[in-house]
Amino acid sequence: MAKEKFNIIVFSGDLDKVLAAFILATTAASMNMDVKMFFTFWGLNVLRKKKLTSGKNALQKMMNFMNKGGADRLPLSKFNMMGMGPAMMKIMMKKSKVPSIKEFIKTAKGLGVKMIACTTTFGFMGFDKSDFIEELDEMAGAASFLGEALEGKVSYFI
Amino acid sequence: MAKEKFNIIVFSGDLDKVLAAFILATTAASMNMDVKMFFTFWGLNVLRKKKLTSGKNALQKMMNFMNKGGADRLPLSKFNMMGMGPAMMKIMMKKSKVPSIKEFIKTAKGLGVKMIACTTTFGFMGFDKSDFIEELDEMAGAASFLGEALEGKVSYFI
Amino acid sequence: MAKEKFNIIVFSGDLDKVLAAFILATTAASMNMDVKMFFTFWGLNVLRKKKLTSGKNALQKMMNFMNKGGADRLPLSKFNMMGMGPAMMKIMMKKSKVPSIKEFIKTAKGLGVKMIACTTTFGFMGFDKSDFIEELDEMAGAASFLGEALEGKVSYFI
Repeated sequence: MAKEKFNIIVFSGDLDKVLAAFILATTAASMNMDVKMFFTFWGLNVLRKKKLTSGKNALQKMMNFMNKGGADRLPLSKFNMMGMGPAMMKIMMKKSKVPSIKEFIKTAKGLGVKMIACTTTFGFMGFDKSDFIEELDEMAGAASFLGEALEGKVSYFI
Repeated sequence: MAKEKFNIIVFSGDLDKVLAAFILATTAASMNMDVKMFFTFWGLNVLRKKKLTSGKNALQKMMNFMNKGGADRLPLSKFNMMGMGPAMMKIMMKKSKVPSIKEFIKTAKGLGVKMIACTTTFGFMGFDKSDFIEELDEMAGAASFLGEALEGKVSYFI
Repeated sequence: MAKEKFNIIVFSGDLDKVLAAFILATTAASMNMDVKMFFTFWGLNVLRKKKLTSGKNALQKMMNFMNKGGADRLPLSKFNMMGMGPAMMKIMMKKSKVPSIKEFIKTAKGLGVKMIACTTTFGFMGFDKSDFIEELDEMAGAASFLGEALEGKVSYFI
């Protein structure tokens, strides 16, 4: 029997929402489902390197300066407080032995979760492939993702 | 064969999220799917005229003053910075030839995407039909939407 | 014929989003669907008692101090303005005869909606069962929820 498909659109780049996405993705993969995470907009920050090599124009550079990349620099959707919130959250995660996003990326890869970056927002944000960590599996557009989602049983927008 | 159904609840009125919703909706429509967008809460701003004619009481007027309508006045979910963020985003969109929300509304209509306003939040926010642009196809309650969603293959809450 | 299943992950603890979740859940239940609400992260605040009895360490206490529980103390996702926004929203809800979240919890229970708290985030936030109101039906992990979601027709992440 074919594996059930489970898909998540990771639109948000907030630590708490990304954490929820990885908990769902790795849980689904452990349940032997075929899991795809489609990172778009702020969610692309999860898979970005810290040092940005691209950024074609001044506005994109400015946006990228504010919109920092890197899995260990994600803000919180609430109580961000200039980074104090995420710091507290990370200590709480560590104390409760919840893996960090970096660890979750590795676990997800190990479980066969496919991580895909959305090319539709790529050009627009001024990114290119060299800005992303090697764990990125694939680049694809919205049409390719929707094709997958249609075959799936459950799909979330986070 | 009947067309696959694809539905989106557009709860958010943030430019970035609304943009994602329209990218998904128009992509799905181009893939020959039957697409319905159900605008509710802040998402109703996308289809509102700028000048509000209704608003039954002082509180609704106050809320509507802050909660500005009109597809070209949507805030960003992050880095809004009193409107500077959306302005930057719009220039980035234009440079990368990403259509504006107004253009997306037209494209979506042309592709047969149905745009529906949620009557359940309507009365509550103090809106009535005259507050909305003519591209609005229909007004319907949550039950009618859930009936549709049940027949669909994929449905997102954005 | 078996009832259709409808599931919502309530990740958000914002009044407006929680309201949307309850409108969808009670509507689906009135349409004779089998409805499960899975509260996680900030969504757990909806089912929390005001007075917190747990919280194992200082950081969790501090987080819980900011992240107030109780269905009548939820903030808004927009225009929160130190609580003025939610106050306005509540008056608007009352004027339009929209039930409060507390009333929605009761209605949902009456309609057979199952309310489940996510144990995966439980330990991490420093909560235990005694922190929750009696309307809470069950505690379960992400795997148990995904098992349910797979059998359902529609599932949202709110």
